[in-house]
Amino acid sequence: MVISKCRCCRTLAPADRGGGGSSPASGGPVDAELLADLAAASRILADQGVVDAFGHVSMRHPAAPDRFLMSRSLAPALVTPGDIVEYSLDCAAYEGDERPGFLERFIHGEIYRARPDVMSVVHSHSPSVIPFGLVEAPMRAMFHNAAFLAGGVPVFDISKKFGATDMLVGNPEKGVALAEVLGERPVVLMRAHGSVAVGPDLQSAVFRAVYTEVNARIQHQTTLYGGPVAALTPEEGVLADEVNMKAGHRAWTLWTKRVGR
Amino acid sequence: MVISKCRCCRTLAPADRGGGGSSPASGGPVDAELLADLAAASRILADQGVVDAFGHVSMRHPAAPDRFLMSRSLAPALVTPGDIVEYSLDCAAYEGDERPGFLERFIHGEIYRARPDVMSVVHSHSPSVIPFGLVEAPMRAMFHNAAFLAGGVPVFDISKKFGATDMLVGNPEKGVALAEVLGERPVVLMRAHGSVAVGPDLQSAVFRAVYTEVNARIQHQTTLYGGPVAALTPEEGVLADEVNMKAGHRAWTLWTKRVGR
Amino acid sequence: MVISKCRCCRTLAPADRGGGGSSPASGGPVDAELLADLAAASRILADQGVVDAFGHVSMRHPAAPDRFLMSRSLAPALVTPGDIVEYSLDCAAYEGDERPGFLERFIHGEIYRARPDVMSVVHSHSPSVIPFGLVEAPMRAMFHNAAFLAGGVPVFDISKKFGATDMLVGNPEKGVALAEVLGERPVVLMRAHGSVAVGPDLQSAVFRAVYTEVNARIQHQTTLYGGPVAALTPEEGVLADEVNMKAGHRAWTLWTKRVGR
Amino acid sequence: MVISKCRCCRTLAPADRGGGGSSPASGGPVDAELLADLAAASRILADQGVVDAFGHVSMRHPAAPDRFLMSRSLAPALVTPGDIVEYSLDCAAYEGDERPGFLERFIHGEIYRARPDVMSVVHSHSPSVIPFGLVEAPMRAMFHNAAFLAGGVPVFDISKKFGATDMLVGNPEKGVALAEVLGERPVVLMRAHGSVAVGPDLQSAVFRAVYTEVNARIQHQTTLYGGPVAALTPEEGVLADEVNMKAGHRAWTLWTKRVGR
Repeated sequence: MVISKCRCCRTLAPADRGGGGSSPASGGPVDAELLADLAAASRILADQGVVDAFGHVSMRHPAAPDRFLMSRSLAPALVTPGDIVEYSLDCAAYEGDERPGFLERFIHGEIYRARPDVMSVVHSHSPSVIPFGLVEAPMRAMFHNAAFLAGGVPVFDISKKFGATDMLVGNPEKGVALAEVLGERPVVLMRAHGSVAVGPDLQSAVFRAVYTEVNARIQHQTTLYGGPVAALTPEEGVLADEVNMKAGHRAWTLWTKRVGR
Repeated sequence: MVISKCRCCRTLAPADRGGGGSSPASGGPVDAELLADLAAASRILADQGVVDAFGHVSMRHPAAPDRFLMSRSLAPALVTPGDIVEYSLDCAAYEGDERPGFLERFIHGEIYRARPDVMSVVHSHSPSVIPFGLVEAPMRAMFHNAAFLAGGVPVFDISKKFGATDMLVGNPEKGVALAEVLGERPVVLMRAHGSVAVGPDLQSAVFRAVYTEVNARIQHQTTLYGGPVAALTPEEGVLADEVNMKAGHRAWTLWTKRVGR
Repeated sequence: MVISKCRCCRTLAPADRGGGGSSPASGGPVDAELLADLAAASRILADQGVVDAFGHVSMRHPAAPDRFLMSRSLAPALVTPGDIVEYSLDCAAYEGDERPGFLERFIHGEIYRARPDVMSVVHSHSPSVIPFGLVEAPMRAMFHNAAFLAGGVPVFDISKKFGATDMLVGNPEKGVALAEVLGERPVVLMRAHGSVAVGPDLQSAVFRAVYTEVNARIQHQTTLYGGPVAALTPEEGVLADEVNMKAGHRAWTLWTKRVGR
Repeated sequence: MVISKCRCCRTLAPADRGGGGSSPASGGPVDAELLADLAAASRILADQGVVDAFGHVSMRHPAAPDRFLMSRSLAPALVTPGDIVEYSLDCAAYEGDERPGFLERFIHGEIYRARPDVMSVVHSHSPSVIPFGLVEAPMRAMFHNAAFLAGGVPVFDISKKFGATDMLVGNPEKGVALAEVLGERPVVLMRAHGSVAVGPDLQSAVFRAVYTEVNARIQHQTTLYGGPVAALTPEEGVLADEVNMKAGHRAWTLWTKRVGR
């Protein structure tokens, strides 16, 4: 394991810049409050046990739909607004920003490209969720806070298309394949890897990432009893999710307070 | 997810005021110590893992049995005495108090109406308890601290009477239906949602909410072994609960110390 | 639930004084270091998740084998040396000390009477241990730190002798019955209640209470796989326990540091 | 349990010095940064729940391959650079250093002897891992962060060669036997005891110890569902581990920050 002496090394190898080509121009300045929200989201996901040293959250650039914002490669608990980098959908960093990025930022870029409705993406290895990428039993919505799962949770198995790999969504092609399996859903599982949650805004994507993990723990306990499970129906899921999208701000208020924003 | 700029917004829509009609008069002033206890109860439930960003606790007005006290809509960990609102059993706020209330305060109002013996109500999505609202296996009392469960724990399935809904007890009719399933019990489970614990005083309702969650975790582990389970019998439950109702103050002393009351 | 206004109330009802008779004389002064150790043990058990608001630890009086030392009735996390009371084996408090004691101090008194080798007793409702008092599967030693369990862990079912009760060992007769089932073992389980761990000194009893809980969690996970379990054999248990009794001081050093002794 | 009055006692009995013979000369001075890293590794393992009061981490002497560095016998959470002792591969301490060492330092000495590629060794009783030393089900790699497990995880049963013992690898012969079962793997399980993780540097060994525990918890949950498990294939494991060995520094950065290095 190579521990770089300089933790803010700025030599970004060209191969690391995504789809090649020259550095894109910026989508324009971003409100400092939004950057603080995005950095807080990163720390919230760590505080809530969704990410550990790995995982990342991004948001689409508010003024430029073909740009997104995401921390440089860094443990989520340590992210501050100054760590945020602007990327094109090809995952190339804004001109002059040579700080190393996450290897898997293609998850974000390709989902933003495929899903105009998505404004924020969370990728994690949320531990209790991983089993559902490994077994045949589908993830289901155990309670109303996880209503967004009631429409079904697809599983992306990277080996189907790419054979034996390092499991990472480390190039645009793999990002496209993942986005295809995600389809119009809010969550996609990744076999032997983790999951992705998306939303129409930053708060919703974080909310979904957190409650996907909570729901997974509840489903594990429920499974102990065998027999039928009276999970949320798809119809109930739609109705309950509408409320979550409004009432969920209570969670954001609490979570930001916990991480000091 | 809508994040209000102003977190103390006081515009309470009329539709949000419960059974309609004009604002009720107050049941009279409440001892500051009681309000501090109620706010502490809210923070205790968060500290003990019974509630997260959601859930609520209330107490009946000490001088007016047709009034109850409950925080405005806020994450339980953040509640202070100043957040407490007075409601009629119709769940209309005391005149002039226009702070948004919890959507599900009808759980509280209708249980106070149906159960004159109940002085406090806790509603939570306590995670380990949720499976018992989804499977056929009944919740049972695994140890004496959960003796109050030994008489049986009913399950309220909102779809039985109301079809596909957003799962919330968001109007008086649903509150009445929930209170009917609760009957004379101390705890009722809510399918794909959570549970409600009630008690003859604030401390007992909190105690029951906490030990319902602890008991659920123990029952999950017990279930791993299959075979018969030598749970508390109903008769043992009655005898043990009497002691809990006296000795339980040790828990309250500890828990209030932890949350800084 | 009755919350006493005065938390240090000193009115000890005669019925609460154990086997009746007059208050016994003291077994003599006790080194302040020992009292600090005993109070720390109480806080350690809370810090390690063995006790919550309930449970207690005692030690035999170092100079008077027919006396033992134990906190007044108080949540274990809050115990300081000033809370410690001296009891006779009949569980009557030293003359003049009228602070309410734990209802179940008879667990301690009767074990000290039956087991001259025991110098310390811990009673807890350690959650992961409770299932083994409810099912037929016996508790076994999953690893060397729990070697003391390898000789077998008996279960005390209070209903066998006393029928339906409040489950508490609240009088001398019940204490005698519990001590009989404990026999020469280091740990006894109590059906639908909790467990007791004993040792030749305070540190060992605490060590055993902690690792009984840790071992229980490991056994639950092990049980998921079905099939044979290569647990410690009784012979391995004897050999490994000898080492624990020496090396265990590392745990005490760490644990006392955590609780501020 | 014997609690030494003096916690820094320096009387090291000759029998405690490993393979006998006279004290070896030092392999030379070690950079203070490396000692600080090694002490931090110890505290990280405690912070991450891999070790409790027991367990230890070592690193090979950077200038002398026949020497290794390891804390004196002490709870891992308490280790500072001043606690680190230099040992020969026979596990004899550097001349004049008479502080008591860990009984099981032979795990380290014999693995360093058998595996020239190994630069660091972690031994723990990481709780969720213990079941896999007790049952027939093999440990498998549930996700890419645990890719190092995909090649298989052998189990060392000390009784196979040594009959009934105290379970400890307390002499060179037992260390040799353990190293043989480890073979060329990164992790070996020890029946009814714990496990060992090794790596080409300190950070990798710590990373592997942490993710062996995380992976075990995920495998327990996965096992609840029965049926086939789409774990990492050995080929995927090799590819994914290469990335971990580079990207893993993010974890080290986070973990050291948490423990104050």
